[in-house]
Amino acid sequence: MKIYLAGFDVFRADAVAYGESLKRACAEHGFTGLYPLDNTFDRGVHGRAAAEAVCHANLELIRQADCVMANLNPFRGHEPDSGTAFELGFATALGKDTWGYTSRHADLVQQIALVDGDAAIAMPGERYWDSEGFEVENFGLNVNLMLACTAHIVVGGPLDCLAAMALRYGAQGSVP
Amino acid sequence: MKIYLAGFDVFRADAVAYGESLKRACAEHGFTGLYPLDNTFDRGVHGRAAAEAVCHANLELIRQADCVMANLNPFRGHEPDSGTAFELGFATALGKDTWGYTSRHADLVQQIALVDGDAAIAMPGERYWDSEGFEVENFGLNVNLMLACTAHIVVGGPLDCLAAMALRYGAQGSVP
Repeated sequence: MKIYLAGFDVFRADAVAYGESLKRACAEHGFTGLYPLDNTFDRGVHGRAAAEAVCHANLELIRQADCVMANLNPFRGHEPDSGTAFELGFATALGKDTWGYTSRHADLVQQIALVDGDAAIAMPGERYWDSEGFEVENFGLNVNLMLACTAHIVVGGPLDCLAAMALRYGAQGSVP
Repeated sequence: MKIYLAGFDVFRADAVAYGESLKRACAEHGFTGLYPLDNTFDRGVHGRAAAEAVCHANLELIRQADCVMANLNPFRGHEPDSGTAFELGFATALGKDTWGYTSRHADLVQQIALVDGDAAIAMPGERYWDSEGFEVENFGLNVNLMLACTAHIVVGGPLDCLAAMALRYGAQGSVP
């Protein structure tokens, strides 16, 4: 089974080596990891032409994949990387299985909302707000509902997610 | 032509009234705006069941739409709202035309990168980094390449984007 490895890991200083480690972890479960930086394109191309080559190569990898595993940890603020979220949406529309992992186990109200006193429990039906006056989703979910209600969300890192996927798909990694 | 109005505007305190204003602006160009909060669902339902109802209703509105217009301004940090990015990816895979607007005209290097001295011009082929050690895309684009290379990006607000869409599709709003 082929897994597209989505996430802002491609922006790490050690992005290529990190991708190799993710692919080895996939292989240990009988999966084949497809990593965005696997794409070969002309590194001499700059600007929009280079961006378009990366974009189309990534979309092609997603089409080839059986499912997507996405790093949904916060990126440059409270939100996941927008490219990663886009790729989950793209894969969802194609009928792929999608998975996401994040270290944030608390729900969005506890992560973000300005609350008086004890924020340990978000009250159902209550409305909560962030520091800029935007409402915080109060559904008991730890990521945006469009992600949480379409993907399998695992609290932990990529190895935890792969373990959950192996349980789901079996050791040989076939979509049931 | 039906336009799905994606964005974190649904989290505004005046979300319903603001959505009505967006739909009026659509109507002035001969378009029909579909706003996520148009969805009717049982407000007495809480938690995951409510989230799933919203999610599926939004996906159904996107399926009904001819195109998506998305608010890609930064949300709770530097990234666009992840639900919005997901919806753009979903619509892209369905072959819908997608549009995004943002007030950020500068490219991502100028928006985000830590640079010494004059950051007015990002050098092609040069690598730039953010405060947490993640590379900043240097393609001269003002949003993540997965969005910039699949959607028409307009610098400005929703009215600017609708004006650009009217120019593209004509006054009667038909996809060419």
